[in-house]
Amino acid sequence: MNINNISAAYNTVRKHSESICEPLETEDYVPQPVPFVSPPKWHLAHSTWFFETFILKNFKPGYEVFDKDFSFLFNSYYNNVGERTLRTDRGNVTRPTTANVYAYRQHVDRCMNELLENLADTHALSMIQLGLHHEQQHQELLVTDIKYILGHNPLFPVYKAGHNLVNSENTESGFLAVHEGVYNIGFEGEGFCFDNELGRHKVYLHEFEISKSLVTNGEYIAFMEDGGYQNFNLWLDEGWSWVNEHAVEAPMYWHKINGEWHYYTLAGLQKVNPDAMLSHISFYEAAAFAQWKEMRLPSEAEWEIASDRLDWGQRWEWTNSSYLPYPGFTKAKGAVGEYNGKFMINQMVLRGASVATSPEHSRKTYRNFFHAHERWQYTGIRLAR
Amino acid sequence: MNINNISAAYNTVRKHSESICEPLETEDYVPQPVPFVSPPKWHLAHSTWFFETFILKNFKPGYEVFDKDFSFLFNSYYNNVGERTLRTDRGNVTRPTTANVYAYRQHVDRCMNELLENLADTHALSMIQLGLHHEQQHQELLVTDIKYILGHNPLFPVYKAGHNLVNSENTESGFLAVHEGVYNIGFEGEGFCFDNELGRHKVYLHEFEISKSLVTNGEYIAFMEDGGYQNFNLWLDEGWSWVNEHAVEAPMYWHKINGEWHYYTLAGLQKVNPDAMLSHISFYEAAAFAQWKEMRLPSEAEWEIASDRLDWGQRWEWTNSSYLPYPGFTKAKGAVGEYNGKFMINQMVLRGASVATSPEHSRKTYRNFFHAHERWQYTGIRLAR
Amino acid sequence: MNINNISAAYNTVRKHSESICEPLETEDYVPQPVPFVSPPKWHLAHSTWFFETFILKNFKPGYEVFDKDFSFLFNSYYNNVGERTLRTDRGNVTRPTTANVYAYRQHVDRCMNELLENLADTHALSMIQLGLHHEQQHQELLVTDIKYILGHNPLFPVYKAGHNLVNSENTESGFLAVHEGVYNIGFEGEGFCFDNELGRHKVYLHEFEISKSLVTNGEYIAFMEDGGYQNFNLWLDEGWSWVNEHAVEAPMYWHKINGEWHYYTLAGLQKVNPDAMLSHISFYEAAAFAQWKEMRLPSEAEWEIASDRLDWGQRWEWTNSSYLPYPGFTKAKGAVGEYNGKFMINQMVLRGASVATSPEHSRKTYRNFFHAHERWQYTGIRLAR
Amino acid sequence: MNINNISAAYNTVRKHSESICEPLETEDYVPQPVPFVSPPKWHLAHSTWFFETFILKNFKPGYEVFDKDFSFLFNSYYNNVGERTLRTDRGNVTRPTTANVYAYRQHVDRCMNELLENLADTHALSMIQLGLHHEQQHQELLVTDIKYILGHNPLFPVYKAGHNLVNSENTESGFLAVHEGVYNIGFEGEGFCFDNELGRHKVYLHEFEISKSLVTNGEYIAFMEDGGYQNFNLWLDEGWSWVNEHAVEAPMYWHKINGEWHYYTLAGLQKVNPDAMLSHISFYEAAAFAQWKEMRLPSEAEWEIASDRLDWGQRWEWTNSSYLPYPGFTKAKGAVGEYNGKFMINQMVLRGASVATSPEHSRKTYRNFFHAHERWQYTGIRLAR
Repeated sequence: MNINNISAAYNTVRKHSESICEPLETEDYVPQPVPFVSPPKWHLAHSTWFFETFILKNFKPGYEVFDKDFSFLFNSYYNNVGERTLRTDRGNVTRPTTANVYAYRQHVDRCMNELLENLADTHALSMIQLGLHHEQQHQELLVTDIKYILGHNPLFPVYKAGHNLVNSENTESGFLAVHEGVYNIGFEGEGFCFDNELGRHKVYLHEFEISKSLVTNGEYIAFMEDGGYQNFNLWLDEGWSWVNEHAVEAPMYWHKINGEWHYYTLAGLQKVNPDAMLSHISFYEAAAFAQWKEMRLPSEAEWEIASDRLDWGQRWEWTNSSYLPYPGFTKAKGAVGEYNGKFMINQMVLRGASVATSPEHSRKTYRNFFHAHERWQYTGIRLAR
Repeated sequence: MNINNISAAYNTVRKHSESICEPLETEDYVPQPVPFVSPPKWHLAHSTWFFETFILKNFKPGYEVFDKDFSFLFNSYYNNVGERTLRTDRGNVTRPTTANVYAYRQHVDRCMNELLENLADTHALSMIQLGLHHEQQHQELLVTDIKYILGHNPLFPVYKAGHNLVNSENTESGFLAVHEGVYNIGFEGEGFCFDNELGRHKVYLHEFEISKSLVTNGEYIAFMEDGGYQNFNLWLDEGWSWVNEHAVEAPMYWHKINGEWHYYTLAGLQKVNPDAMLSHISFYEAAAFAQWKEMRLPSEAEWEIASDRLDWGQRWEWTNSSYLPYPGFTKAKGAVGEYNGKFMINQMVLRGASVATSPEHSRKTYRNFFHAHERWQYTGIRLAR
Repeated sequence: MNINNISAAYNTVRKHSESICEPLETEDYVPQPVPFVSPPKWHLAHSTWFFETFILKNFKPGYEVFDKDFSFLFNSYYNNVGERTLRTDRGNVTRPTTANVYAYRQHVDRCMNELLENLADTHALSMIQLGLHHEQQHQELLVTDIKYILGHNPLFPVYKAGHNLVNSENTESGFLAVHEGVYNIGFEGEGFCFDNELGRHKVYLHEFEISKSLVTNGEYIAFMEDGGYQNFNLWLDEGWSWVNEHAVEAPMYWHKINGEWHYYTLAGLQKVNPDAMLSHISFYEAAAFAQWKEMRLPSEAEWEIASDRLDWGQRWEWTNSSYLPYPGFTKAKGAVGEYNGKFMINQMVLRGASVATSPEHSRKTYRNFFHAHERWQYTGIRLAR
Repeated sequence: MNINNISAAYNTVRKHSESICEPLETEDYVPQPVPFVSPPKWHLAHSTWFFETFILKNFKPGYEVFDKDFSFLFNSYYNNVGERTLRTDRGNVTRPTTANVYAYRQHVDRCMNELLENLADTHALSMIQLGLHHEQQHQELLVTDIKYILGHNPLFPVYKAGHNLVNSENTESGFLAVHEGVYNIGFEGEGFCFDNELGRHKVYLHEFEISKSLVTNGEYIAFMEDGGYQNFNLWLDEGWSWVNEHAVEAPMYWHKINGEWHYYTLAGLQKVNPDAMLSHISFYEAAAFAQWKEMRLPSEAEWEIASDRLDWGQRWEWTNSSYLPYPGFTKAKGAVGEYNGKFMINQMVLRGASVATSPEHSRKTYRNFFHAHERWQYTGIRLAR
């Protein structure tokens, strides 16, 4: 998005969140089936709360909050802003209703548009830009959380007919070779980036090759049929415990029906397409598959250096890099400083973007991160050696 | 209800369930905040499923089920009828929607009314009667579950203005004396009863006195102010663990605000009325209070023998009797046999009825039962000595 | 034991505890594999602590405690006496050593013998008697806890060759009939009893028959082979959850080896003797077996009335009575009052005595009690109808 | 240790394990208070099992195992070697006794000495070397596990008078500067190293400064007194949850007694020495302390490059590097390949060595690793900026 046209960007992004929710029934907005999945209603309200709290309250003189209880209800993890509701209780908060939440959005959008008419304060503009990128992150979560809610309903309801999302196939094959040497990684330039991409810095890479294609469902079925989930030699110790504790035997959303693998998609239950890119696997599964192939996952630096010559953007690709600060990283003071830095422990970096990533919300320096066991995102595997 | 006028009874009872839900928003129908609280939508569907499964499928020739998935979704604990959804997952099932559930009710009601026009089969009639009593039980749970959902929302939303439900006061005082001797307890007569009330049988009671009034909020506050929750000598060992593990320091729904006790009621947050009957306490709390008073709780037999001379019906009254079979009790064969018998372990009997009990759904032989720690029902204390 | 010869009784009982531990290695005295099993070292110390705390400190002028830390370490659940160590931590307390604990016993025994030389105080004498019965209760736990520790060692070590303990067979068969009427139960007479046996009182019993024999391993195998553990209709709801959660498929200590049932005994691993009385089953299993036989378990009152005409004493027999106070029961003030009353919730009564019960520690009014899932005691089944 | 004198090295190392246990009572060898702490008896047996399994069975013709059950009991995590006992059950295995375990050591030592008399097989020699380094790792765990067992006994028993271990003070102060550039890290040379140190490779380091001293108890008390444990801005999100869930308010083994900080040491409970190096803190605490100082922890590469000019070796120093494979890392085939690689997820690297590290068991390329919350090792903090 272009900061020069922030007003148009604001309205485009905000509308997109609502269009994602358009196929939902009112009931679908409510549940939080597991702590890491939030109710769609909450995503819509929380992304709005961000603009109210960090922009309208600070930059719009005389702004009156829509409802003072909302600060409390729709804060996510910003300890600096005030007491937050427990993350695990979001699914029980039936009021404010979905209609109230939409009213809240309208109220904030109206005030934001008034503010944007002649806003020049660069700090305000950069906070708005952050707010829009924040909302885009929640748009991806909206898609994956809706899939989780509907995909765990024993009736497997359809979100939108024809909207499968997991059908993309590779356009290239083979491996790309990269020479040894000192490279620069991290964000540079004028556009937006998150604080965790900053500190463009030098890294030393040894010679490597990286696959031009992502692993397909068919390749993964070969792993499964070769006893991949039963062979502890392929797994990290923690991954092996995870497989056994949860009796994992296939990617998330896969169901064997009459001897054939099916998966839940946003278009309903379908047969697995063997040529499509694999999705919904944990880091543990990615690492075990790589071990089975006698290859490995790329590091995030390797990925970034090779990315200009790769076709990426259908899956978040697990790297073998932990999510840690770049040299010189410092947390911003106050609530905004809680955005990224405090999560830099025990998570793995994913690079690229997925079919659920919002338009204009990807770049090669983007550092996404999840815990090694998480797989409700559209995650995939690219091998290196 | 009168079996001679089953058709009128059917429509009255069915309508009452819907009238309880009348003040709800669509979102309120969805959550299951804890496993023992079910979504209102589920109660409406499950009580309907009972009529479809046990009456329409068996007694209405050519009946076509409304939706075959519903048997699976809205079974509660009848293992004989088929696989059931896990009790803890009810809050995540957003589809069928609330509107679908109401359509299901209409479909079943229309078919039931057709069937009732000239139904003479006595087994069918008695199953319908059971279904209506079953629905009345769920009506009480609807009230208490709605209270739980709204009462755990940090905004304390009002269900219905003026509808406090916990304001009743005692009309009598003092103790009633009962002589030693052999008495008969258990159901007799022509009306309806549950299987667990049958086998009218003899019991030997020793002389006792039973209070004509229930414990009030004011009396309970005296217990609290005397350190009742801190004095382990008053508590059962398991109760003392419960108090400490959950940091219990007041009845459920009580909140101390600026030094004064308030409670959440269906009419919103209010100051505690010291003259009203205490409600929402566990068996552990009832037993500790009785110990503090140097009295005890009555047994269920004592309660039943005294009941004709007591004014009861505002609270479910904890007795010191475990829920066990009467002499000669036998489980019915098949699914209906799962109604009561299989719960006869580790639960305590409550007698009487509460402000949330449905009209015509109480009698002196009625055996209600809950676990010792449960307190989301309108439970109260009557002392004996 | 006879209070007139308290000194001999004291020394006999105390010696018996040590003789139970005679076959142990020092290491066997230490572990607490699960919270309900205590280290043998702890039993030896705790029963000694009882005499030091309640007798020597109160009745022996100038008595000096062996070690002041022991009051803290070897209290079990007497909240009145002072802070207690957490029950689940007993297995980590390596010091004091076993040798220290034996020295503690010697010190207390020497002082007790001095005291007993010319003790006339009747309160002291009755407390000593209580202490001896308390130690006898711990003797039975010593046997069952040692069995648990050794029986969960994958090497199945032998406690004492030839000392099988589970081999007893029935001497009688058929059913005994008892007439309807008012009966008296509860302790009477001059000997010792626990407070929970007091208040001899009237009960009304309906006509019943009770088996003269206990269920055998062979009969239970028939239940297992008939799919008893797979048929939910036979089980209490809570029992069915217990079976599934713990994947229970046989009594405790049973192992199927090469297609044949074996059990761990104190003499090592042996083939199951089909003619011996069944042992180590939970209340849930007892109730399911009775349901399968289309009979039931007796109530504790039925058992007590029939007991004079029964051959009992090899197994603790599960009754279908909850552990509740008799009419007129009152807790003693202070620590001794914590002995029994505070456990009167969610436990079932067992009657009789087992092969592990200490000599002279059984009588027909004795009320033993355990939770419905517990089965590490020598528990068995007697049917009624 | 020198491979040329492997026989002397073998006997020295093996004797050292036993000398660590010399002050123990038999009971101290048994418990496993938490899953990550193993019984001393188990360490002694497991390190012996390594020699029996990987050397004697493979290289000593006609070797007969001491006891075939031991393979099963004393395997730790080598899935390839056979079924292993569950890690959480080690504390319940009272047999084999401690005396048996010492006999096992003698048997294996005698056979190893016979084998070593004229052993030339280089694979065998290198496996023996691995076994000795493995035993040295367990020697450090023996010290920290013994401290855990005794330190969690409410009586705080003394392991060895005068043997405090946490009293070391810094000998230097100030910061050391390192220039930007390409450096080499990883093991090179002829001695022993673990597979995870291999792949000497290039890294690019930016300019940094690293402290010549470790953080002291006094400095850490200043952090505590400044509200360090109450200020969420200083903590990683996961660290903040850890602090709150476990109510952490000081390093492990610290106790406030009459207003003064004490700590449990192997010489018993003592007043905290403010000039001694801080010990027993988690990565979370290290990171929060660094944040409070407005500095950071070094990466493992920074540490290694600076290490020649640092005085290290009293504490394991937390780095801000995740434990991940070096470029070109490959797992060895079979059981030995399970040694390190499978743990490369969700652990942080520690560098240096501690007062509990065995002699000749440290080098600057050594990569120790623990989970971020673990603190029963002698862990400390060195700051960088």
